[in-house]
Amino acid sequence: MPTMGALHEGHLSLIRQARRDNDIVVVSIFVNPAQFSPGEDYARYPRSGQRDRALARQAGADMVFEPNAADMYTRGFQTSVEVGKLTKHLCGLTRARLFGGVCVVVAKLFEIVRPDIAYFGQKDYQQFVIISQMVRDLNMDVRLKMLPIVRDRDGLALSSRNQYLTGGQCKLAISLYQALRAGRAAIKKRKAKNARTVERLMHSAIPHASGIRIEYLQVCDPDTLDRPRKITRPVLLAGALWAGKTRLIDNILVR
Amino acid sequence: MPTMGALHEGHLSLIRQARRDNDIVVVSIFVNPAQFSPGEDYARYPRSGQRDRALARQAGADMVFEPNAADMYTRGFQTSVEVGKLTKHLCGLTRARLFGGVCVVVAKLFEIVRPDIAYFGQKDYQQFVIISQMVRDLNMDVRLKMLPIVRDRDGLALSSRNQYLTGGQCKLAISLYQALRAGRAAIKKRKAKNARTVERLMHSAIPHASGIRIEYLQVCDPDTLDRPRKITRPVLLAGALWAGKTRLIDNILVR
Repeated sequence: MPTMGALHEGHLSLIRQARRDNDIVVVSIFVNPAQFSPGEDYARYPRSGQRDRALARQAGADMVFEPNAADMYTRGFQTSVEVGKLTKHLCGLTRARLFGGVCVVVAKLFEIVRPDIAYFGQKDYQQFVIISQMVRDLNMDVRLKMLPIVRDRDGLALSSRNQYLTGGQCKLAISLYQALRAGRAAIKKRKAKNARTVERLMHSAIPHASGIRIEYLQVCDPDTLDRPRKITRPVLLAGALWAGKTRLIDNILVR
Repeated sequence: MPTMGALHEGHLSLIRQARRDNDIVVVSIFVNPAQFSPGEDYARYPRSGQRDRALARQAGADMVFEPNAADMYTRGFQTSVEVGKLTKHLCGLTRARLFGGVCVVVAKLFEIVRPDIAYFGQKDYQQFVIISQMVRDLNMDVRLKMLPIVRDRDGLALSSRNQYLTGGQCKLAISLYQALRAGRAAIKKRKAKNARTVERLMHSAIPHASGIRIEYLQVCDPDTLDRPRKITRPVLLAGALWAGKTRLIDNILVR
């Protein structure tokens, strides 16, 4: 399990599943500078090593690998690993360095740890399809498992960045999941076929409130991440919402 | 040993060394489309599967891995592996896709074969430092060995592309090695310290003849490939020469 620490129940559900599936469970904790673009929250990203190590152990980790940036990016480091088309959608449009940074660090972690199975959360759905593509393209000998999003009781997808939210922002942030659910209901119950109509419906579920801004809220092909016009097969509903200076993402697969 | 086939004594010297060092020797033969730029010789690159297999076996290969392009680059393939600064020198300046293509295919072959040691020829010196950087940066668990250039009795570095040369071009092509030797003599015997002077000397050793064109002929730092002004430590003398439509490279390490 590659993680950036600040572990929450989402991470712990991955570790518990890995514990059930494997003889040895390795969790890495590394806030990866390569995947933050200038102006993003690298410096203030929550770091809680001791607490994380204890939580990881309790959930079933045998080893916690906690390198520092100088270990991972040694002097003269100059290699990039990039996935093409899949990174040109959703989060890739605004977070320029994100997926290149993710790919390079995951490639490194896979070489260092040599896992049989690696676990990822569905919240970062695009990350999962990109890593899957990298693994396939580079013949990496690892299986990938994606586990469901864990939510708080209001439906907010758990994220280390939820720590940044004020109480008021939390209430507004929940609208992201509500919008995705409204989209799903339109597709499942009301048999909506027009993807743009579903997108408009989802947008209308986000309140016009100070500091709330939709970055994207889309119907996507779950494999290519392209935006279909017609909904004729399973789709991914995916959104990114800003609440103040905090960026939240969420998604639902509609089968 | 990753090769593009059309095996010559240079390749065979690698296979024989691998045979001495290892229990199992795997040779791959794959003319890698990803490393040819448009207009280069991908289509006419010499292919000689049956002869190559026999030669590889005789030299000590236990297995010959001969994938086709559709095996290596499956539908939807979209991952790139790039090394930075080191590719901005020498062959990287004119052959835009070369080192990206080399890195991605070598990364794939390393994952498929999982070698303990991989062998490369010094003729592709820049390739070797780039792959070494990739291996270091991505924590790949493989040792790399570089073996000396094998030459014909006139001094021409063996290359699969020498097959393209006419008799007359062969004679002119030898001037590349002569130029490098003249550079080495200036440094070793006459203690030349000015890199530009050595470069001019090397250039003057290439005859002005129809179809002969110097692409580069340089003094380089063997680690960074930068061009030093002063020669104060070991250097690489490296050249690329066109003889008609055939591009030849060669180099000498001066310690």
